[in-house]
Amino acid sequence: MLDQTIGQIRPLDGAAMAAARDRQARLTKPPGSLGALEELSVRLAGLAGACPPPLPEPAAVAVFAGDHGVHAQGVSPWPQEVTAQMVANFLSGGAVVNALARQVGATVTVIDVGVAATLDPNPALVIAKVRPGTRDLTVEPALTRTEVLAALDVGITTAGRLIDGGAGVLVTGDMGIANTTPAAALIAAFTGADPATVTGRGTGIDDETLARKTKLVATALAVHRPDSADPVGVLAAVGGCEHAALAGFMLAAAARRVPVIVDGVIALSAALAAVALCPDALGALVAGHRSVEPGASVALAHLGLEPVLSLGMRLGEGTGALLAVPVVAGAVRVLQEVATFDSAGVTEK
Amino acid sequence: MLDQTIGQIRPLDGAAMAAARDRQARLTKPPGSLGALEELSVRLAGLAGACPPPLPEPAAVAVFAGDHGVHAQGVSPWPQEVTAQMVANFLSGGAVVNALARQVGATVTVIDVGVAATLDPNPALVIAKVRPGTRDLTVEPALTRTEVLAALDVGITTAGRLIDGGAGVLVTGDMGIANTTPAAALIAAFTGADPATVTGRGTGIDDETLARKTKLVATALAVHRPDSADPVGVLAAVGGCEHAALAGFMLAAAARRVPVIVDGVIALSAALAAVALCPDALGALVAGHRSVEPGASVALAHLGLEPVLSLGMRLGEGTGALLAVPVVAGAVRVLQEVATFDSAGVTEK
Repeated sequence: MLDQTIGQIRPLDGAAMAAARDRQARLTKPPGSLGALEELSVRLAGLAGACPPPLPEPAAVAVFAGDHGVHAQGVSPWPQEVTAQMVANFLSGGAVVNALARQVGATVTVIDVGVAATLDPNPALVIAKVRPGTRDLTVEPALTRTEVLAALDVGITTAGRLIDGGAGVLVTGDMGIANTTPAAALIAAFTGADPATVTGRGTGIDDETLARKTKLVATALAVHRPDSADPVGVLAAVGGCEHAALAGFMLAAAARRVPVIVDGVIALSAALAAVALCPDALGALVAGHRSVEPGASVALAHLGLEPVLSLGMRLGEGTGALLAVPVVAGAVRVLQEVATFDSAGVTEK
Repeated sequence: MLDQTIGQIRPLDGAAMAAARDRQARLTKPPGSLGALEELSVRLAGLAGACPPPLPEPAAVAVFAGDHGVHAQGVSPWPQEVTAQMVANFLSGGAVVNALARQVGATVTVIDVGVAATLDPNPALVIAKVRPGTRDLTVEPALTRTEVLAALDVGITTAGRLIDGGAGVLVTGDMGIANTTPAAALIAAFTGADPATVTGRGTGIDDETLARKTKLVATALAVHRPDSADPVGVLAAVGGCEHAALAGFMLAAAARRVPVIVDGVIALSAALAAVALCPDALGALVAGHRSVEPGASVALAHLGLEPVLSLGMRLGEGTGALLAVPVVAGAVRVLQEVATFDSAGVTEK
């Protein structure tokens, strides 16, 4: 499924982008006065291969949940059970991702791609568990290559189902106690950055735990020596089920020419894997926000993406990306709906 | 009307703010992980005097339009007629403010508070013209004190009408060719900043025009020597009808304990006047975005406000502030709807 998906991804359509730039210059506003909104509209035209592109609505956030063997090393103050407890919270609509999804009119889909517990069946929960938590990446590969491919397929299938269901824009979400540790290792592996510059406080660890976490990331890299030219191998060595699923989710969105708004450090580590698998997938990615997690900024710089929002958030779940949905939709709406100088009878300077 | 409005403005409610902080700490998320969203929710609780505060919806943007005598000095490449033409564009729904208002579910009200032309009657246009364009502020006071008070009243009346009509949050909008020149002069007068640090390219002027515009701002300050302790006098000397109306609009929102999302440099220059008239009005102001116009950043720093968005925009009309509406509403929705650790059965670290 991965190869077929990658085979469908095309570069941005230069003609549609040129048409969008031309149209922006004729709209009733000073040229360039909408700043990043204009560039965003141009990219989305290129992705859709049409000017104007379709309105990126409604939004659908997919929250991929998984657990991590490295939790045993004490990288998080939260017990592993919180992953499953938060999944239950998502399903009952009580988490921040649910509140913000309601705010922007997005649906929430929760996928168990690797939770360590057996979750109760729920009509709103997709059970697609690749394995019940990864292995400890500081000791052995977190996943096998087969498991990585299965997780990528979960993401691809999820994206396809949401787009078939009418979603005009996808939003990445994630849940997994300890999942900033594999994210930091992935970012270091794909960008070559030092573990100390990509490892952060996650949900809020103290200096001592941060120092231990940074050393564990360095250990993982030293043990596996992941090769960024082999993205599946990198995901197997130091990744997680939700990281791999998110990479597949982004690739499938790109294949379907649907934009995907990328959340924080977990999603950005997955974006590095997706773009390593297929560089043209970058055209479908919109960085929703700048997480305070340091690895997020390293990944954003590596990808060359400027985030829509910068609100000092570090929750994950897809919360930062959801808040960017109306801005992304607004950028397209301007291109669709605003009158030109000619049509409105406004004098140009 | 001004004195009565100011008399109703109260400081933020400390008990409601403490309750909001306490509630944020018990919600199912790591403490502090929503960054600026958390502080925003605390301020809005303080403004409403309730935790949680009411959802700031629906939004209503008021676009105050006016012309400026200083236009004759060549501070803008656009002909003055464009103000009236853009008002027509707003009324037919073709401008960027209209598209973004539709995106966030906001109503658009257009108020002629000082356009130099006689506008055709339109059911969607409020004619409250104080005078047909200001006088040239580099030669004489732009407005009389009586005219300033009349414009302040237009803003107060507009805010009251929108809140009575059910608006849960107000958004500032403006239109007026050449109105960044009085905005720069107001910001210099209220903050003490140098004309060169607050004068910008507005709709996009070249280096030569920028140099002339900066000198004209310096001239206006030298001619009038405005005293920031006399805000009405400052507005009369170097302001504009829409600037004064916006100040009244903000004061009335504060008096009614309704948040007002402040747009770019025009609105921020008016915010300085509003806060000079009543320091407690600051509690009602949310900075929607950071305009690239340099005076905007000077005003934001003086007010101590951190903007929600920073997208390199410089259009005005209320466009940047409108995009912040869902973020502001999201901040409140989190406080209203997210489960606590206790209620959701999630283990705390």
